[in-house]
This record gives sequence, C-alpha cells and structure tokens, in this order.
Amino acid sequence: MTYLDFVKGHGTENDFVLLPDPDDRLELSAELVRAICDRRAGIGADGVLRVVGIDGGWFMDYRNADGSIAEMCGNGARVFARYLVDAGLAQAGELVIGTRAGPRTVAVPAVGEVTVDMGRPELLAGTHRIGRHAGVAVSMGNPHIVVTLGEEAALAGLDLTAPPVVEPGLPAGQNVEFVVRTGHRALSLRVHERGVGETRSCGTGVCAAAVATIMAAGQGRDEDWSVRVPGGVLTVRWADSVLLTGPAVLVARGRLSTDGDRLLLGADHA
Amino acid sequence: MTYLDFVKGHGTENDFVLLPDPDDRLELSAELVRAICDRRAGIGADGVLRVVGIDGGWFMDYRNADGSIAEMCGNGARVFARYLVDAGLAQAGELVIGTRAGPRTVAVPAVGEVTVDMGRPELLAGTHRIGRHAGVAVSMGNPHIVVTLGEEAALAGLDLTAPPVVEPGLPAGQNVEFVVRTGHRALSLRVHERGVGETRSCGTGVCAAAVATIMAAGQGRDEDWSVRVPGGVLTVRWADSVLLTGPAVLVARGRLSTDGDRLLLGADHA
Repeated sequence: MTYLDFVKGHGTENDFVLLPDPDDRLELSAELVRAICDRRAGIGADGVLRVVGIDGGWFMDYRNADGSIAEMCGNGARVFARYLVDAGLAQAGELVIGTRAGPRTVAVPAVGEVTVDMGRPELLAGTHRIGRHAGVAVSMGNPHIVVTLGEEAALAGLDLTAPPVVEPGLPAGQNVEFVVRTGHRALSLRVHERGVGETRSCGTGVCAAAVATIMAAGQGRDEDWSVRVPGGVLTVRWADSVLLTGPAVLVARGRLSTDGDRLLLGADHA
Repeated sequence: MTYLDFVKGHGTENDFVLLPDPDDRLELSAELVRAICDRRAGIGADGVLRVVGIDGGWFMDYRNADGSIAEMCGNGARVFARYLVDAGLAQAGELVIGTRAGPRTVAVPAVGEVTVDMGRPELLAGTHRIGRHAGVAVSMGNPHIVVTLGEEAALAGLDLTAPPVVEPGLPAGQNVEFVVRTGHRALSLRVHERGVGETRSCGTGVCAAAVATIMAAGQGRDEDWSVRVPGGVLTVRWADSVLLTGPAVLVARGRLSTDGDRLLLGADHA
C-alpha cells in the first residue's frame, strides 16, 4: 500500500488533483491516473498535476484524466503555481515553472487571481467552415478553430454533444470555440475540446478566441479582454505573448492510498 | 474559515463525502452540501453523509447532492458503517446505525463487503406499463417499478436519458429498474432514479428488482442473488427482511475548508 498526499483545486471549474513529488520518485501509471480522476470510484478531476522538484525548480507533469500525457494546460498552470505559493514551495510574485511545452512564467500574488504567460499565438492560413459559419484557425501550441456568432441566444442553443464538423479540418484535429461579443472587450464562449467534448473551460481556447477577435476587430491589443466560459470568467491580454489571468482555487487537501492501481484507503488511515 | 475533515468513499460507484461530526455541531446548509458535491468546484459526490454521534451511537445524516434530505440510502449505509469500523468508532461485527427511516442493522467484517438490512419490501397492487412492458410496483421505503426484459441486448440498448413514461405512474413518482435474468439467481439491471436520472447503482432499486424477480419466479427466497449494476455487483437475500451486501470502499481522507458556503483551502493548509 502506497500513500499519496494530494490537493484538489480548480481554475474556472477545470479541476485537478495535485500530487506533490519533490524528489521525483512517483511512478504515475496511466491506470493510476485514471483511478484518481474517476469521478465516482476515485477523487475525480479533469487531470493530474504531478508537482516535480527538478534542478531547484518545479516541473508540471500534466496528465489527462484518460492517462495520456499533455504538453501544457493554462488553467492547470495557474492552479499549479497557486499551490507552490500556498504550500510555501515558492515565493509569491513572478515565478517560472517547467512544462513539456517549455518554461512558463506565472505571476502569483499572495492572494487572488493568477496570470500565466501562454506564449505567442500562431495564426494559421485558410478558412474553415462549420456549417454556414466561417472559422479562423489559431494555434496556441495546440490547434483551435474560432467561430464568431451574432448573439448569445445562438451560443446557448448550440448542441456540442458531438464534435463540430469542420471543413476542411486541421491535420491533427482541432478544438472549436464558438464566440459572441457581449460588450466592450468582452466575450462569451463555449468550447468543444478535441478528444474530450464540451468542457467548462479551456485556457488555450479562451486565448485563441481573444486573439481571433482582436485580429478581426483590428484593435484591442495590449488591452484586457474579459472572457466568460461556462465555468467562470477569465481575462486575456495579448501583448507580446498572450497573458491569461483567472481564479486558481485550492479546495481540499488529503491523502489517498493505492493498492497497485486501485484506490483503497487503509483502515489505519481512515 | 472553518476546516472540515472528510473521507471520500463509494459503494458500487455510488459515492459519498463523509463528514465526521461526533458532537453534532456542524450546521450543514444546502449550499454547503452543493458546494462539496460539485464535481468540479468541490470534492464531488452523489451525497454527503454526516457522521453524527448521538446517545452513544451513530446517526447517518444523509443529504443528496442537490442539498435535499433523504431518508435512507443502502449504498451510503454500507460506506457509513465501513467508515465507523475503519476509523475505530465501532467494533467490526454487527452494529446498528440511526437513519431517518429508523435504526438499521449493518454487518461489517474487519475487511471486505458490508451487509445492510434494508427492511421488508411492500408489494403494491396493480400493473404499470412502460411502453409494451408490464411493470411491478415494489416499495423499499421508496417507490419502484420493476420491468423484466428478455435479453441483455435490450438492456444495453435502452435510452434512459429521460424518465421512462409509466402508465399509470405511482402517486409520488417512481424509480424504474429494467432487469434481465442472466443466470441462476443472477440479474443484471439499469436504473433510472426519480429526480436524478440514470445512476451507476441504487441500493433500494437492486433490492426491489430481486424481490420482484423472486415473486415472479415463485422461488429463490432465503437465497443469495447476484445483481450486476453499471457500477459493480451486489448480493441480495430476501429472508424476513431484505439483506443487501456489497463493496464499501474508502478511497481518500482529507480536509476541506469553507469560507461561508464557498470552498477555499487556506494557504496555511495547502
């Protein structure tokens, strides 16, 4: 039986189980990730963030709930950085965390919202159609198609239970954001994530949507944009790179135990 | 800021957050229950089991995820009793726990599956139709309509996204179980719970299905029946009362904190 300390947290309802691993000792199998992320037989989360101490700094080993490896997660990076500061592993202020997509700068005040530098967007050529709508292709390290709708009622009425059909689709597939301008530098969006389905929030999708809107409007660079997603509100600023700001909330800490890849709390730890 | 110790557990994937409250001090608002049971912004569970010390024994204060009060939950009672024994609050063996439906006897070995006495079933008169199928009405304290299907393919093909239409329905509505005989004293079922939707498991529904099947077969009293639900396998024996046996697994313990009805872990506890 192995005991693992954990923290549960979320950013705009994109939720994570954090596993502190300062000495990089934890072998995290895909089966164990799935067991932890199981929302009924486990703790439940969209993914696991292993908090790995490496070379005097911290590396975010992010795993999707299905056990697969992902390069980067904007909501995850904010929650990861909030944990580092609240647990006393890093000073409040600006810090750099390692990710598979390279080092990322995160600004973490002692209390309040966290900003992560999401890097530079890449605008992809070509027009992509979803039904009668034209979509714009933006890469934030991962591929997005952004479609702007005219009104909020159209957004609310979308059926995102199946992946939107994109013609032509991108080579590696795409996340799709449906966006509505709701006010001065304000957007509302819903997102269908590649391989997942509709989610409450998607950090890269929020950035891609703001970038596509700013491009189309021809204004709004270096300004704060407010982006509402089903799980809350994020702020995006496209300066040199794209800065994503939003809540990063830790809700519980605890201990779980594994018997192989199965979760089972020993009686002496109940 | 209030800190609450918790344990997370499940019985056949019917999952619960347990809140030990030996001195009956905890004011559990509907808002706080909803925050705890929120599967993204909270811990996530089908319900909360407040473990209340009363008169030298233990009372199960069960709340549904929506914050409403429920009288009794067979899977919850097993997990509740497993917690009492593993935490050293009760001796392994037979114990009686208080519930809003009255005292319930639970048999908890030091290790392994837990049996709860679900009381006597009540067979209700009348036939109820769901489409071309005839259903039998059984009360296990709450109302059930049990429909027997011919084959497992029919079970797998059911669409339970909407409540099955029962003609006539029971006065207070009903849970509906679709059942297939899969072998000698073996059933497989899917359940639509009143006000909830399809669930991974339903303790009273499993008992009602076994009772209806035994009644129709005219045999099988005082015998163990194996009942497969989407979340696992339970054993039912209809003796004088109905005994429900199955897994009760504690997977994690921890601490959460509340700032009013909001969950927010203080930095000093991360």
